[in-house]
Amino acid sequence: MTRTSADIRVAVSTVILTLRRHPAADDRAAVVLPLVRRTREPYEGRWALPGGWLGAHEGLDAAASRTLAETTGLAPSYLEQLYAFGDVDRSPTRAVSIVYWALLRSDEVDAQLAAAIDPPENVAWFDAAALPPLAFDHDQIVTYALWRLRNKVGYSRVAHGLLPELFTLADLREVNEAILGRRLDPANFRRQVEASGTLIPTDQHRTGSHRPARLYRYNGDVELADPGPLRAAPVRPVV
Amino acid sequence: MTRTSADIRVAVSTVILTLRRHPAADDRAAVVLPLVRRTREPYEGRWALPGGWLGAHEGLDAAASRTLAETTGLAPSYLEQLYAFGDVDRSPTRAVSIVYWALLRSDEVDAQLAAAIDPPENVAWFDAAALPPLAFDHDQIVTYALWRLRNKVGYSRVAHGLLPELFTLADLREVNEAILGRRLDPANFRRQVEASGTLIPTDQHRTGSHRPARLYRYNGDVELADPGPLRAAPVRPVV
Repeated sequence: MTRTSADIRVAVSTVILTLRRHPAADDRAAVVLPLVRRTREPYEGRWALPGGWLGAHEGLDAAASRTLAETTGLAPSYLEQLYAFGDVDRSPTRAVSIVYWALLRSDEVDAQLAAAIDPPENVAWFDAAALPPLAFDHDQIVTYALWRLRNKVGYSRVAHGLLPELFTLADLREVNEAILGRRLDPANFRRQVEASGTLIPTDQHRTGSHRPARLYRYNGDVELADPGPLRAAPVRPVV
Repeated sequence: MTRTSADIRVAVSTVILTLRRHPAADDRAAVVLPLVRRTREPYEGRWALPGGWLGAHEGLDAAASRTLAETTGLAPSYLEQLYAFGDVDRSPTRAVSIVYWALLRSDEVDAQLAAAIDPPENVAWFDAAALPPLAFDHDQIVTYALWRLRNKVGYSRVAHGLLPELFTLADLREVNEAILGRRLDPANFRRQVEASGTLIPTDQHRTGSHRPARLYRYNGDVELADPGPLRAAPVRPVV
């Protein structure tokens, strides 16, 4: 194995997910992600996930952060490893890609892009539900990331990654609807969330065109009690 | 990056977890895993996870199954990818290791070892709670696998992988106690499990030295409803 396996190269790619409102779709929120247009073969001209080759002297996490910043100008406080993709035919030259992902609030995205030294080139944001054909097996990677995200909504506080510190139940329902790709009954949703005991109601309310809505926050103590043996407590994990 | 990153090699390793009774510890079940003694440098003589180099013409899953079979004679019906470990200093030569894991019932282990053509050499099974210092970063990998396993007990039917088709609540509690490393109150455990609605009681009972105990089975329909986009429904996934 030793000789042949030396021909395999390691890459990292990152799926950054955020919510954007669609003015075209009565301002409904949708999951969007940044893609980079390839400027050379293979798949020249196709859109691909941000990424690059793993450096001989950098760890996987560092490579994910570096290549994401280099290609998109984004710098999430925490990137979580998603999955390693290594099918023999996923690329013309044999490459195993370690894929990372992160959730970013749209205001965090805007702030990071505004702070980026060089404006990213060949980058565009796409609705995850309406992607063009991507380079390599990146369609499959995005599909897998969205599947994991939908699954996590059930048992984790994944929506936390897309919400500000204080939010209304309508905000939380909107995030869940965008992730699940379907409308949720407001009354049932409220019952389930209140029964889960994962939210802490505050005394603050949001006022506006509608009647004042109570603001809630997550009980982060429970959530990050055990960040796992690999790292310190993540700031805003996907899980 | 291209030049230097070509020096990185890809390996696969596998964590196989099963339960064994400890005659020394009043027959209590403990999580055990197979390790392979290294016969060459680096770490010659140290125990390591089963594994090997990724072949240039095989996928990650295939490499995990092949190297596991070659080193231990085990052939789980399903291996789940756990995590990719790629710290710069985890090995004298730069190597990224894609780690897989699987749960096997001890009777499955015994049957597979009996069916193996060549008896595995330099393989021994260790209590996960009392491991010797392992080669490379394999201590960290096992720690991570056990952490993931403990976490999954909470929200998944992970114990299913270590139980026969029909089992008593005492069987299920014993598996959870072995995974969590602590005793669970039988009455509370029964209440929680019955409230979860994940088990289907059967009309069968196990008779023996104690009073007859009802046999249960998992409702597999729910569990494997969505195996994810990457593969067909796994036979016995860890998740």
